[in-house]
Amino acid sequence: MKTIFLAGAHGKMGLAIQDMIEKQADFSLVGMLTTHRSLAAIEDGHGLAGLAAIFTTLESINTKADVWVDVTKPHVAFANGKYALTHGYDLVMGTSGLKETEVDQLRQLAEEQGQSALIVPNFSITAVLLMKYAAEAAAYLPAAEIIEAHHEDKVDAPSGTAVATAALIAEARQSLPDIPASDALARGDQSQGVPIHAMRLPGILAEETVIFGSTGETLTIKQSTNNRSAFMTGVREAIKNVDKITGLAVGLDKVL
Amino acid sequence: MKTIFLAGAHGKMGLAIQDMIEKQADFSLVGMLTTHRSLAAIEDGHGLAGLAAIFTTLESINTKADVWVDVTKPHVAFANGKYALTHGYDLVMGTSGLKETEVDQLRQLAEEQGQSALIVPNFSITAVLLMKYAAEAAAYLPAAEIIEAHHEDKVDAPSGTAVATAALIAEARQSLPDIPASDALARGDQSQGVPIHAMRLPGILAEETVIFGSTGETLTIKQSTNNRSAFMTGVREAIKNVDKITGLAVGLDKVL
Amino acid sequence: MKTIFLAGAHGKMGLAIQDMIEKQADFSLVGMLTTHRSLAAIEDGHGLAGLAAIFTTLESINTKADVWVDVTKPHVAFANGKYALTHGYDLVMGTSGLKETEVDQLRQLAEEQGQSALIVPNFSITAVLLMKYAAEAAAYLPAAEIIEAHHEDKVDAPSGTAVATAALIAEARQSLPDIPASDALARGDQSQGVPIHAMRLPGILAEETVIFGSTGETLTIKQSTNNRSAFMTGVREAIKNVDKITGLAVGLDKVL
Amino acid sequence: MKTIFLAGAHGKMGLAIQDMIEKQADFSLVGMLTTHRSLAAIEDGHGLAGLAAIFTTLESINTKADVWVDVTKPHVAFANGKYALTHGYDLVMGTSGLKETEVDQLRQLAEEQGQSALIVPNFSITAVLLMKYAAEAAAYLPAAEIIEAHHEDKVDAPSGTAVATAALIAEARQSLPDIPASDALARGDQSQGVPIHAMRLPGILAEETVIFGSTGETLTIKQSTNNRSAFMTGVREAIKNVDKITGLAVGLDKVL
Repeated sequence: MKTIFLAGAHGKMGLAIQDMIEKQADFSLVGMLTTHRSLAAIEDGHGLAGLAAIFTTLESINTKADVWVDVTKPHVAFANGKYALTHGYDLVMGTSGLKETEVDQLRQLAEEQGQSALIVPNFSITAVLLMKYAAEAAAYLPAAEIIEAHHEDKVDAPSGTAVATAALIAEARQSLPDIPASDALARGDQSQGVPIHAMRLPGILAEETVIFGSTGETLTIKQSTNNRSAFMTGVREAIKNVDKITGLAVGLDKVL
Repeated sequence: MKTIFLAGAHGKMGLAIQDMIEKQADFSLVGMLTTHRSLAAIEDGHGLAGLAAIFTTLESINTKADVWVDVTKPHVAFANGKYALTHGYDLVMGTSGLKETEVDQLRQLAEEQGQSALIVPNFSITAVLLMKYAAEAAAYLPAAEIIEAHHEDKVDAPSGTAVATAALIAEARQSLPDIPASDALARGDQSQGVPIHAMRLPGILAEETVIFGSTGETLTIKQSTNNRSAFMTGVREAIKNVDKITGLAVGLDKVL
Repeated sequence: MKTIFLAGAHGKMGLAIQDMIEKQADFSLVGMLTTHRSLAAIEDGHGLAGLAAIFTTLESINTKADVWVDVTKPHVAFANGKYALTHGYDLVMGTSGLKETEVDQLRQLAEEQGQSALIVPNFSITAVLLMKYAAEAAAYLPAAEIIEAHHEDKVDAPSGTAVATAALIAEARQSLPDIPASDALARGDQSQGVPIHAMRLPGILAEETVIFGSTGETLTIKQSTNNRSAFMTGVREAIKNVDKITGLAVGLDKVL
Repeated sequence: MKTIFLAGAHGKMGLAIQDMIEKQADFSLVGMLTTHRSLAAIEDGHGLAGLAAIFTTLESINTKADVWVDVTKPHVAFANGKYALTHGYDLVMGTSGLKETEVDQLRQLAEEQGQSALIVPNFSITAVLLMKYAAEAAAYLPAAEIIEAHHEDKVDAPSGTAVATAALIAEARQSLPDIPASDALARGDQSQGVPIHAMRLPGILAEETVIFGSTGETLTIKQSTNNRSAFMTGVREAIKNVDKITGLAVGLDKVL
């Protein structure tokens, strides 16, 4: 049985994780950190009937658990992560927004405290496989471009996953393709030599496509997330296996 | 039976058109204007066995036909067009390179002479249908983005067809979608409010994709050209229907 | 301003339509017919604060509106439709389950009463546009195949929309493509000469793709439904334009 | 320097291979076996000026080479392969049409004679990568379907590559997805539990797509061949590395 403390418990991801935990016989939710307005009136540490204890500040937390699952915003996640690693929790953090210096501090804390930490920029197993195959294919097929498409409410562009994929391709390929640049530009990025084209449209949740071109042929790898339930397989595997990590690791592939 | 005179008969397009005419039972090729070196030795007006009469100058032409099909370069096409419209031919001209004043002169000539003229910037019927449907769909689905992909030797970006499609969408839609812009950019264009993402990769000849997004659904229209033979359906429809035009028209859609 | 009466107001579609009406400045919801248990206690004709009047039987309705929107089950819809057309409402009915004799009776009523009626088997505007464009393109591009993909719980195959699209293509094309048949077969259909390939996979809600092939080029039209909210654009257009119909029409395309 | 004997030298693949060999500084074409009518008049063993010696029967061959490259039809390839392996050649055979017993006989011959043999069902590096990634992904994502699309002149269906991909997926996945079967059918195959949908359309040369579906997400891997030049990278790698094989191997991946 894994006991779990969930931070960001009433955002979209948090609610889906609550559902997943409830269905998983060997998981038990023991506490939640939340900033949801409608729950602010609840006295810290007192759960509603049948629910885990709810807290609204780090200071008020008075429960322990094996794993701290954090699906809060980046500006909160770092403080949460420090709290978790210094209070006896292993850490599964779902964010791509931490600064490198913050990741380094969390790594150092994890090592000092003998805890395990996993930062997961993307819980989608299809996204993780896409990145793996794209990195492999780039060794044979150096010319590549990326299209990522997200719903119109995603304000940042390009997506963290697309940037990470471009970095993997740029590192893996053995020659630079001779592809024309352009002065005319649209939403995206080309800083790593792998152009990323970023689409923002209603009707799409999250998609990433990598297209490799070679003489007379192309290879396309596409990942599509249609529903936030997609991430639950990844969250589950992360919770189950985080304790196998020594120190801190980044990426769902580290526990597959 | 349509009789045809073909100018630019031995370029890539011209050779493909010769093949198409031969297979079309109701088309007959009666003359060709050519500047191909290997044919310069042939006496004007004498065809090779089984071939239509070949001419190397406008002055030497001594045949008549229903339709003058012109797939020469822009600097020659204008003179050819004037000749055709003043010598009893209807005109099908495959170029996007004429100046506006030249198009106006040809229009005036066509009207004066009672001939029909069609200028076709793009003979690809799938590209023409894509533009038509994209313009129609934009009235209902204002949020759209375009991806165009071409071979790595196409140095200009975005493609003229993509820019024209964006203009049609921008004109047709009745509201502006509220889609985030971005400071990070890649090859493409967003000047018309319809982002165009331009890919340049080996293994692709020419593709254009328009994606419309609406709450919970998307509509994608994609056109792919894999081979220059693609244009023959368009050339055939233009020859068949040019005589339905009064004066001069621009665009293959005018005869569909 | 269009005033609307909504029947089936608390099913999945009904709730989504309530949301849509609220956001639409020129629509006003004035009454709802509902059979939802939790609302049965509300006295007929009295709305909750800020809500339209709620009724649980046809007999108790005492409001008038421009349009009766009906998203009930087929066995109820017919009686509702008769009521609406004989009580001064135009009718927008979202169902594919009426018998032909029932449709005929509603048509006769609409004509007698001088009301407009629209029966919509599929409110997805992208599906309706796909079918319209596919039928048009088939006139130029006779070789076509269809891929439809649905979630794994859809047991029937191929989908009704795909079969209808194949029929439209078969009817519109002017020549039969010479495409090889095969003894080896997978889920789908080829009875209309337009092969339909039916995929059933988790992670997909509903997609339909038509691919037209011609010498050297292809045209692909794809429609994807990711969420039941998809249908609201279609419902909105139907409400706006139903009054342009004389008598009764079937299909969202009749008001596009 | 690798010396090469080319069987099937004047088919489409053979002609492309002649071009590739000419451009490759460390390859030398020393002989060709051909059945092309227009070459039948050439006396066996006498090349045209600047060309390798041409033979029209196995019996007449009087040259030696390091590698026998065979791109003939299946009914000829087997006899050719036996001849090559018993006459001092390593063998690169581009076919997917041999019977298992024939492959076994060639394997035995290669081992007895101390020659190396590589049978390559598909020389496309993107197809080989697609198959590799599909087999890997199936371990996590058991629900999969395949779409293969080829030009209208390909009479057999489904393609050998698609059947091979389905076999790899069927073998790799650890559970069977619960996906509905159907009585209605189209061109394709479902014998291995991985439905293959086979499209035959003009405007397409060769494409293969594998779609994996899981809760809320999909992974798509697509390979597209637009031009026969696509295969030359694979042919070149096969010729270069065939001598590293002990006995007989099947698949381009064996020399990557």
